[in-house]
Amino acid sequence: MIVCVHHSLCAASRALRIQLAEKGLSFDLRAERPWERAPEFLRLNPAGEVPVLLDNAKIIAGGIPALEYVEEVYPEPTLLGSTPEHRAEVRRLVHWFFCKFETEVTRPIVGEKIGKRITGGGAPNSRSISAGRLNIHVHLDYIAWLMERRRWLAGETITLADMAAAAQLSLVDYAGEVPWTRHPEAKGWYARIKSRPSFRPILGDTLSGIYPPKHYVDLDF
Amino acid sequence: MIVCVHHSLCAASRALRIQLAEKGLSFDLRAERPWERAPEFLRLNPAGEVPVLLDNAKIIAGGIPALEYVEEVYPEPTLLGSTPEHRAEVRRLVHWFFCKFETEVTRPIVGEKIGKRITGGGAPNSRSISAGRLNIHVHLDYIAWLMERRRWLAGETITLADMAAAAQLSLVDYAGEVPWTRHPEAKGWYARIKSRPSFRPILGDTLSGIYPPKHYVDLDF
Repeated sequence: MIVCVHHSLCAASRALRIQLAEKGLSFDLRAERPWERAPEFLRLNPAGEVPVLLDNAKIIAGGIPALEYVEEVYPEPTLLGSTPEHRAEVRRLVHWFFCKFETEVTRPIVGEKIGKRITGGGAPNSRSISAGRLNIHVHLDYIAWLMERRRWLAGETITLADMAAAAQLSLVDYAGEVPWTRHPEAKGWYARIKSRPSFRPILGDTLSGIYPPKHYVDLDF
Repeated sequence: MIVCVHHSLCAASRALRIQLAEKGLSFDLRAERPWERAPEFLRLNPAGEVPVLLDNAKIIAGGIPALEYVEEVYPEPTLLGSTPEHRAEVRRLVHWFFCKFETEVTRPIVGEKIGKRITGGGAPNSRSISAGRLNIHVHLDYIAWLMERRRWLAGETITLADMAAAAQLSLVDYAGEVPWTRHPEAKGWYARIKSRPSFRPILGDTLSGIYPPKHYVDLDF
């Protein structure tokens, strides 16, 4: 039995759920509020971070370790790439979206507007939100640049790079903060991944008292 | 021919150099000042980060992608672990030291004391330095906890987890900020990795005008 210990606002958790669904694996979700640092959760991951993947008796802690583990143990279909160079490109982009995009866009926007409400973290910092709103254009332009050259972000097939990027963007979209109309190429790519069955459960997540804009779940947005 | 594009103050670059040396691979070093964002460097890695590994015509951008690539293409001896679970544990700890330790210790201490001098980033923030000095004890205690249970951080053999951790600590040690006397177990582990031939070139790096404490290069510190 596979269990994904996650939080709806965690992009790495979302990417892992999409990966598991793309592999056709069935799994249970267990919601965790990692900032509460419950002792039983810290025993699963002393770093206090989601996601944690439980695969029978095995505990795989952390987003990238879990994605890599799933590729190793459930290799078909591969979402990591078919050669060392392709895998390096996938990993480069996963890192880009998990680290760079998260730091420059998701945390300044979603962390401030939604994260602080959920964790009781105080008033949102409007300067952070403004910075995130500026930064997102660079990333959407980069997606457009890649889309001029490739069918999916890391090459001709869908990979973890697309899942990492879409997971981040889905959070910013929940906050109503993706300027889609100014970025039609990025929008076209996102529409394709959004329409996959693996993505639907992600869009069904709701945070109590905080609602996404109407277009969030629409495939024709 | 293998080239490691690096900066002496980048822990991931240091870990990659140790890994390459442990594999017995010969490689050239090319120093890069990533914050200057030279166009030819951004063509290698649009994220503007070191390390970048050049393996003949292949460009592998980013620390974790490069470490994983080297394990795939030059698998002997393995430094990533022998089973999916072992590799998950190695990756968990690499992530711990590359992300958590770097954010909580290296950046607040080394970034403020040394990084800002090199990049012209202004006066060090003494509150950050104080925070890093508090935080390091948690990490050294965690190393001690692991050392009570294992020979190396992720198990019975040396792995990338040790290299990631030692790379970070070597930077903090360069700044003279590791409280070794209060953490004998962590010191014992660090002494073992420091004495390996793969580690010696790292200790030979110097930053112009900034000198490490005398014990930095001593194997008996």
